[in-house]
Formats: sequence, structure tokens, C-alpha cells
Amino acid sequence: MSNTIGTHFKLTAYGESHGPAIGGVIDGCPSGIEIDRDFIASEMARRHEGAYATPRREPDEVEILSGVYEGRTLGTPIAFTIRNNDVNSDDYRELAGLYRPGHADYTYEQRYGLRDHRGGGRASGRITTSFVAAGAIAKMMLRNSGIKISATLQNCPVPPEGDSSGGIIECTVTGVPAGIGNPVFDKLNARLAAAMMSIPSAIGFEMGAGFEAAQMTGSQYRDEWDDGFSTKTNHCGGIQGGISNGMPIVFRVAFHPAVTINQPTECIDRNGQMHTLTPQGRHDRNHLPRTVVVVEAMAALTMADFMLDKV
Amino acid sequence: MSNTIGTHFKLTAYGESHGPAIGGVIDGCPSGIEIDRDFIASEMARRHEGAYATPRREPDEVEILSGVYEGRTLGTPIAFTIRNNDVNSDDYRELAGLYRPGHADYTYEQRYGLRDHRGGGRASGRITTSFVAAGAIAKMMLRNSGIKISATLQNCPVPPEGDSSGGIIECTVTGVPAGIGNPVFDKLNARLAAAMMSIPSAIGFEMGAGFEAAQMTGSQYRDEWDDGFSTKTNHCGGIQGGISNGMPIVFRVAFHPAVTINQPTECIDRNGQMHTLTPQGRHDRNHLPRTVVVVEAMAALTMADFMLDKV
Amino acid sequence: MSNTIGTHFKLTAYGESHGPAIGGVIDGCPSGIEIDRDFIASEMARRHEGAYATPRREPDEVEILSGVYEGRTLGTPIAFTIRNNDVNSDDYRELAGLYRPGHADYTYEQRYGLRDHRGGGRASGRITTSFVAAGAIAKMMLRNSGIKISATLQNCPVPPEGDSSGGIIECTVTGVPAGIGNPVFDKLNARLAAAMMSIPSAIGFEMGAGFEAAQMTGSQYRDEWDDGFSTKTNHCGGIQGGISNGMPIVFRVAFHPAVTINQPTECIDRNGQMHTLTPQGRHDRNHLPRTVVVVEAMAALTMADFMLDKV
Amino acid sequence: MSNTIGTHFKLTAYGESHGPAIGGVIDGCPSGIEIDRDFIASEMARRHEGAYATPRREPDEVEILSGVYEGRTLGTPIAFTIRNNDVNSDDYRELAGLYRPGHADYTYEQRYGLRDHRGGGRASGRITTSFVAAGAIAKMMLRNSGIKISATLQNCPVPPEGDSSGGIIECTVTGVPAGIGNPVFDKLNARLAAAMMSIPSAIGFEMGAGFEAAQMTGSQYRDEWDDGFSTKTNHCGGIQGGISNGMPIVFRVAFHPAVTINQPTECIDRNGQMHTLTPQGRHDRNHLPRTVVVVEAMAALTMADFMLDKV
Repeated sequence: MSNTIGTHFKLTAYGESHGPAIGGVIDGCPSGIEIDRDFIASEMARRHEGAYATPRREPDEVEILSGVYEGRTLGTPIAFTIRNNDVNSDDYRELAGLYRPGHADYTYEQRYGLRDHRGGGRASGRITTSFVAAGAIAKMMLRNSGIKISATLQNCPVPPEGDSSGGIIECTVTGVPAGIGNPVFDKLNARLAAAMMSIPSAIGFEMGAGFEAAQMTGSQYRDEWDDGFSTKTNHCGGIQGGISNGMPIVFRVAFHPAVTINQPTECIDRNGQMHTLTPQGRHDRNHLPRTVVVVEAMAALTMADFMLDKV
Repeated sequence: MSNTIGTHFKLTAYGESHGPAIGGVIDGCPSGIEIDRDFIASEMARRHEGAYATPRREPDEVEILSGVYEGRTLGTPIAFTIRNNDVNSDDYRELAGLYRPGHADYTYEQRYGLRDHRGGGRASGRITTSFVAAGAIAKMMLRNSGIKISATLQNCPVPPEGDSSGGIIECTVTGVPAGIGNPVFDKLNARLAAAMMSIPSAIGFEMGAGFEAAQMTGSQYRDEWDDGFSTKTNHCGGIQGGISNGMPIVFRVAFHPAVTINQPTECIDRNGQMHTLTPQGRHDRNHLPRTVVVVEAMAALTMADFMLDKV
Repeated sequence: MSNTIGTHFKLTAYGESHGPAIGGVIDGCPSGIEIDRDFIASEMARRHEGAYATPRREPDEVEILSGVYEGRTLGTPIAFTIRNNDVNSDDYRELAGLYRPGHADYTYEQRYGLRDHRGGGRASGRITTSFVAAGAIAKMMLRNSGIKISATLQNCPVPPEGDSSGGIIECTVTGVPAGIGNPVFDKLNARLAAAMMSIPSAIGFEMGAGFEAAQMTGSQYRDEWDDGFSTKTNHCGGIQGGISNGMPIVFRVAFHPAVTINQPTECIDRNGQMHTLTPQGRHDRNHLPRTVVVVEAMAALTMADFMLDKV
Repeated sequence: MSNTIGTHFKLTAYGESHGPAIGGVIDGCPSGIEIDRDFIASEMARRHEGAYATPRREPDEVEILSGVYEGRTLGTPIAFTIRNNDVNSDDYRELAGLYRPGHADYTYEQRYGLRDHRGGGRASGRITTSFVAAGAIAKMMLRNSGIKISATLQNCPVPPEGDSSGGIIECTVTGVPAGIGNPVFDKLNARLAAAMMSIPSAIGFEMGAGFEAAQMTGSQYRDEWDDGFSTKTNHCGGIQGGISNGMPIVFRVAFHPAVTINQPTECIDRNGQMHTLTPQGRHDRNHLPRTVVVVEAMAALTMADFMLDKV
């Protein structure tokens, strides 16, 4: 607990990498939203692209189990499920008693006393399939309000052979009216930060000028008024006092490189003994390209939640 | 809404800068915790030090209204209040219809339709008095578990005359056992990020290696095992998969410079007309030194909440 | 935990009977509501009337500490406090180590390990002062939507000398439009039930025909349509499937008699030893008359919460 | 919203009567609980017994999609799904534009603007399949703490041909230690009341002596101490001040008769026109016998939630 995000547009996510299915339930989506199943499929395809740690061939098909009738949302919970086909648990047998460096193997076992070690279990990057499916539905809702979300990969160094690389993703949300957000512990920027830090491998978050603002003076930083309540600069990233000001909302998320790499790996077992593991082709040189749509999805879920708070 | 943070150790904060009082209610603090009123006073004093936008002479005295009997917590809600003495609302009369650049004047009015413009109202840095008072109580609870929180100001350039500066505060939490935190939407790092972004002027957050991790390769980044489940490096900042790993928890928060500076200021009114305002000695060259204890307080509130989730 | 009720119009209550103060914080009250302090005072007076276990002479004055500026709500948290003047803790010295029959003395101490025994502490009927103060603010908000709440004492037998009596309070809410309520775990009737059972001494709740409906046949029970979506009868009490149907909302709450009576009382101590306590004039023959306004207050808080969910 | 119940052992339920599936996600179930699939099946069978409005032949098979590995819970969300096989939507075609008396047809459409009219949609009694499946898992958890839940049908008159009857179900929970429950807005009795009122057709709730207590005097009502902190009577139903006292927890729930009966029915359409509908064998003379296990399930979910709060 807790696998729920949002208070109005509320996603409860579930699933382990190699269990029967990944999925979620959205509670609070307004009634009457048209559900475009092709759009959901295209978002899932965006996530599926790129090199995978364990390339799966299944198309990650999203089945909707409730909450939609004759192509429109009912206002009741929207449950969806994505089957984990094409899984081979045998690949992970050697990992059963070992904690890999940089992974959540040790921490999950400290937290829960046991874990599903296959493919990272609940800590797997695969769980973001449910984020993307729910984000697609959030985007359909936001589209009706003229809100658009677009993320891009800013830098992402090419790693040496057998290694991986990190990177930074920038996201821009346009069309948000001024007045969205709730001080003092439900600020739009605070909630965006939490949503982004929920993405596996996220390690930093900044709004607008971000860490560079720490080097500025107040006269450089403060966004001076321009015409019609817009501002000449957007150092604050579109949010002041936790509330949107009508300018584009801009933030960046730093991701560390994938910790599963194609190199011999020193693992520790429950007794504190070291074991050298030689990976067999399961590596992910670059997980950033497919994380772009995940960033968008988490932004969409957050914005949908706040838009319903405003009405 | 919402002015509540936490789900187990839950603070509901209230108060405007120039209203009768600032304060809060803590619900969920365990019974039997000894309340050291001198410690609360010393934490308030740490916050009070340094140059203020509007130096107040009152000692920010915390009165406890409930939840404590014979020096110990009862397990019932702890209400506390800090009177706003020594306030002069006349200083702010000229600001009534104006939106200053960089402030939350415009956004609050878009959100609520009206606002208390005096001293920033609920958007004032003064509201952090309630964070510090509650944080002091959280620290007393954490002390019993051997958890210590310490923040330091990393850089903070001296601004030119009449201007202000930003800076970065680093915070370290020691004594946290492995296994604290809840995937996937209640991660310890995500909740720390949200807590920090709730502090006025916060604009960036990073764990461990943070944004630098985006430039690393996986072989550089991943923290290799050392003796006894500790790691040789701490690039992840003590959290993996949203759960503590027993290493020190380390994060940094970037703050933008104060937007109230001692220079002529172009304000906009509700009709879109510009007005030049000349500030009269109300400026805050550097709010960072007193923010250090606020960062600690928000970290303490977050950690107290998670420690109660684990039991 | 938890001393918070509501998710949109959210009251966090605090205070022990003989501590410094009783009070609460309302988070989520919309901005711009006119606050009539005379109305709050008159509601407090309604509660104060009748015979008290320990008659207090103070007028239970409500001080508002935040969230109101120039007579209107700001949309920020409304904190209020009611001082416990005129308390004499010495009266309760003999109760310190004893558990009275029928009271929450034993259960509180099992829950928290210690308690404030003076006047019942947090379990005292006195805490309903905060419910009534908050309810008065909720009523002001509802008044703008044309919603009216009215409770009456249905029966309340006169008890023999030195004894107390229970009773039933019926409450009617008019002006609620059809379509208010949220299936399946946030039903309007379920939330009303929980709100009413939160009142000290409440022991039963029923909507409309209530327990008598268990004896009816379907053809007797079901409310047949009349003109304009109204119904000929109102056996369901104005709610179907957890959602209001536009008819008056009608429910009844059963209260057990006060357990503090003017008779010798067998108390048990922590070691299981019995002690006979002879009460000295502290009895409450009939707490029902002053509970009427408490029922209205809890109904108002519940309705305010749902009305904000609908908008 | 909201289809979630509980804060620690948290069930999010979904599904319409004639959509693809009914189900839920349990978040917060501790790790290491043994899952007995035969027990889940036997609880589903208890619910399935008796006469149905629309007898379905499928065995209501529960598929677990996540959160269980090698027969034990992982501490991660447990998603389960129950397919709606054997549904014939054609049976309901004539109901599309009509609101039946006593049903939630009109209220759902007022709430959401549209609805899935087939078989009652989300307001159908069929949704209690998800309550029973989740309740079975809660019972497995409670069994480890020695807590047992048992409900019985108290009265349930035999209705005349073509009609239905209501009834009262009494539930007893044994093995609950003293000290479970949270004043003042999270009382065990208040939460039981809300859980019971969430069951379709519930119309009244009472603890212990219930409505009869309103006729008692204090000297009759108050439960006098017996040996070892037990009491001679149990008029309070095992809860004082919202907290369990170690005695059996006893409550009763009144249910109104089913409103679908085998008689001509005056329905109203959206324009206010009346239409006489002649039902064709779809009636449910007595839904009470199968509601017994639903009452137990809701009690189990509530108790599981509180037991996790106490640890």
C-alpha cells in the first residue's frame, strides 16, 4: 500500500511482471467520455517501442472489463487488464535467493518478507504498462478541455557496449487555465513531482528554471508581466504558490541508467555471501525512449485529477 | 484543499500571514511520546533567525491546545496555535488590487475568486511556522527510533544590494532501517519530493546522485554491495524501488530566490493595467538560512508517517 | 486517528473535555461564503441548553483563527477554537485509576495505553461542541443551495429520579436535488449512518421505513411514481442506490441513555478489583434535547461534503 | 466515486451486472497470508444459493490476477475478476428508457447522465460477488488472529405469490481483542454501519440493544462489570466510545424487500410518461438468504482494516 494515485481521477494499479496480468481500476472518470480504443493501442505501442530488457512479443493488449458501455464511460469504475503472455519464468530461476546491486530485490524483501523475484515482480518497469493505459484514458478526458501533454527526451548518451545510459525527459503541458492547484500540501508542482518520482528509475525533478534558479538573483528570476496576464519569461514553469498561472507547465525528470547491464554482476544472498552472476543477453541499453510516454501518462493522470477538483 | 499531509502521522495546517493565528492539528501521533516544549521553542528559534521580509519581534510561541496530558501525548489530536502578533496590515494596503510578479497573488485569486492580500496571506512563507512546530513533534517521535535528520545549506550566493538569492539545501536522514516505503504510488522518495515541493520557493528535488545520474552509465551508477548489506556508493540516495535500503537517505532541494526584492516592481491590476510599486524596506535578501529547519521539518513529518506505516 | 470527516468539506476535530480547548479545522469550504457569527453563537446556544452532567457556565464562545477575511471565507482552512473555561479537574481525581461501567474508560486505555480521565477526555459529550460549530458553517454553505436540515426529538421517556433515559431523533433534509451520492462505498445513506454513529451514545440508524421495512412485502414497500418524478410514499427515505431521488431525506437515530447516573456505581480498576463509587450530583437525566442540534450538525457536514462532490 | 472501502485493507470494486466482468483490487493485504482457493469458491457458492432474480448458471469463478505467488500473498495488490458469463442483455431491452419504481434507475441517470440499464448495471445485487470474494480473503487474514464472523437470518416472512419479503440479519464477531477502533470519526461501530449500509437493500443498522436501548433507563442499559473485564450484559454490542471492549461484537442489519416483483409495474420514462411493464419471470422472492454471506464479507473487510490499524 498504496497503489492508488489521485483523489478524483483515481488509479489503483496492480500486477507483477511475471504474474497472470498487469492492470488497474480508474475510479472517478466522469461519465460520457468517448473511449477511443485505437488511441489506447497506439499509446501502448509507443511504450513498447525500443530495446527491452526482455523483449516480449505480445502486443500488450488492453482489455476493458467495466465502466464503458456503447463506447462511452458510465462514471463507474473502469477496470482494465493486460495479460502477461510470453513470459518465461525459468530465465529467473538463478535469481531466486540473490539480491542484485542497484535493484529493489533487497528492499522489497525487507519490506514484505518475501517477493516474486521473476523479472523484478512488482518493481519491474513492466508495471508502467498500466500507467500508460490509464494515462491514455486521462488524455481523452483532458482533450475535451483543450489540454495537451507532450514529452521529449532531452539527452541520452549512447552507452558503451554492454552498458546502459540515463537521461532527462522534459514535459510540457499546454492549455491549462490559471487557477488549477491546491495549496499548501496538494500543490500542482508537488503532485507532479510525486507522480514523476513514482516512475521506475526517476531520480530528480525540477520545474521551469529548476536547479539553475538556485544560482539566479531575484531580479533575474522573477517572471515579469507581459500582455494579458502572461509573463515574459517562464522560470517558474507555469505554477506559482502551487497553482497554475495560465502559462505552459514545464518540468524535467532525471532518470538514472538501467541497473540491469550486460556485465558480470556481484549479487549478495540472504546470508551476506557474494555470488557472481553473468547475465545472458538480458540488458536494456536505453530505457529512456519508451519512458517518454510514461512521463506523459503520469502527467495526464495528475492533470485529470486536478481538473476534476476545479469544476 | 488540501492542507493535510500524511496518512498516519497527519498534519492539517492552517493560517494566513496576517490573520489571527497560524497553526495545525496532528492526528495519529502515538500515545506516550514525551513532549519537550523547550525543543519546540528551539526549533521555532532556528526558523526565526536571519533576515526577514517583515521582521516580526514576537517569539512565535507555540501553544498546545489538546492531545497532551501531563507531558505526554494521549494518542488524540494534538492541536497547536501560533498567534500572529505584531502585524501591521496597513503596510499592505497598496497591494490590495495588484498582482506582483513572481508571487502567487494572481494564481490565488484565479483559484478562489478572492484572497487575503496582506503579507501574502496563505501563500506567505510565514505558514512554515506550523510546519516547524509539527516537525519538532515528529522529531521527538523519530528520536525514539534512532532516526536523525540534518539539513545544511549547500550554496547560497550573496546577492547584489537590493536583490535576493536562491540556493540548494541538502538533507540527510540517518538511522532509517531497510524496508521503509510503499510502492508504487507511495514511494518514500516520491513522498519526500512532494513534501519538499510544498515548501514555498522550492523548484527542484533530487535523490542521491540526482541529475548527475542522467550522465552516468549503469556500471558507474549502480551501487555495488559492500559488507553487511551496505553499499560502496550511495548514488540512489538510500532508496530503491521506493523503499529504504538502510543507507543514509540523502536528497537536495533547489530554491529559487525570493521574489520580493528591494527594487521598483511592475505590478498588474485586475484590468490588466501596469503599476510601478516602490518597495519600502520590505525585502528578504536571503530566505535560505531559515529554510534549513523547514526542510528538516518536512522530512521529519514524512519519515514519521512512514515509520507508523511499518509497525 | 482518525478525527477527520469528509473528503471535500473536511472537518478535523480536536480536544479533550478538560484540556485547554476544543475545536477543529475545516478544509475545503468554498471561498466567498458569508460567515454569520450570530448564527454560530445561536447554534452553540441550542446545544448548551438543557441539563448538563457538569453544568458549565461559559457560553462556549467560538473563535475563528483563519480562513475568514472581511466576513467571507477565503477557501483556505477555517480553524476555530472553543476554550474550556470553568473546568475543575479535581472533581475527577477519584476516577483516575477506575473504569466506570458503560463508559469508554477501559476501551480508551486499551487503545492508547493511557488517557485523560478528566470528564471523559476525548470521549466526552463535550467534543460535540466542535461538531456544532463546524455544522453551523456547513449550514451557511447549504443555505445558498436551498438545503434545509431539521431534527426533532421523537420520544424520550422521563426517567425515574437519579436515572437517565434514551430516545430517538428524527432528521429531515429538504431541498436536496436528485443525483447526490456515490455508489458503491460512498453512498449518501452509508455516509449519513457513519456520521450519526459518530455521535456519542448513538446505537442505531435507519432510513425511511427502516426496520419496519423488514416486515413489508415488496409491493407494500416500493415507492410508486407520482407526478414529476416524485413518489407517492417515501419508504426509502429519499435515497435509492446510494443516490438522492429528490424526495426529502428522512432518517432516525436511536440513542442509548446516558451511562452516568446518580446512583452508586461499581467500577473496576486496572487490577480487576471492584470499587463502589457514589456520584455527587454529576448526572445527566436527559442528554437527548441538546443532541438534536448535534444530529443536524453531522447531517449538515455530510450534505456539504456531497454537494461539493457534485459540482 | 468512490468504489474503495478501507484505508489499510483497501478494496476497490468494479463491474456492471451485464458488462464483461465484476471484480476488485485489494491493496494492503499483508504478505505471507496463505490463500485457500477452495475457501473462496465455497464462499462464492454460499452467495450463489437460493432463488435469483435472473438465475445464472455460471459458478462465479474467481480468477486472481496478481499479488499471490506460490500460494501466498506478496503484500502487493491482489486483483481478482469474475466473468459475467451467461448474460442475456436482450431481456432488458424494454427497460432502456424506463425508470422502475423503487430501483436506482432514475437516481443513477440523474447522477451520471447515462447508465447501463441491463440488469441494474452497477446498482445490481450482482456486484456483491466482488464483496464476497474480497471478504473471503479478509477472513483468511482474520483467521490467523482468531477472529470469527458469523451471520444468521433472524426473520424473513414468506411473501405471497409474486411478491418479495424483507428481513433482518444479525452478525456476531468473536475473538476481537479490546482496544480496536479509532475515535471520533473512525469508530468501529460507525464503520460497520457504513459497510452494512453499502449492501444493496440495507435500510437500518443497530448495535447490541439498538433501537430498544432508546426505551431503557441508564440503570437498565449500562453493562455492569463481571469477572476479568467482561460484562454481565452486552447492550452496547461490544463497542464503547468507538473501540472494542473484548466482548462479542453484535449488530443487526434491516433489509427492505426486493423491489423487483412478479407483478405489473408502473414505470416512468424521461418525459414523465407512465408505462405498465409486465415482468416475465424475473423476480426474486427472497434475497435475504444469500445476503447472509455478504453481511459477513463486509464485516470481515471492516475488521481486517481495523486489525491492520492496531498493529
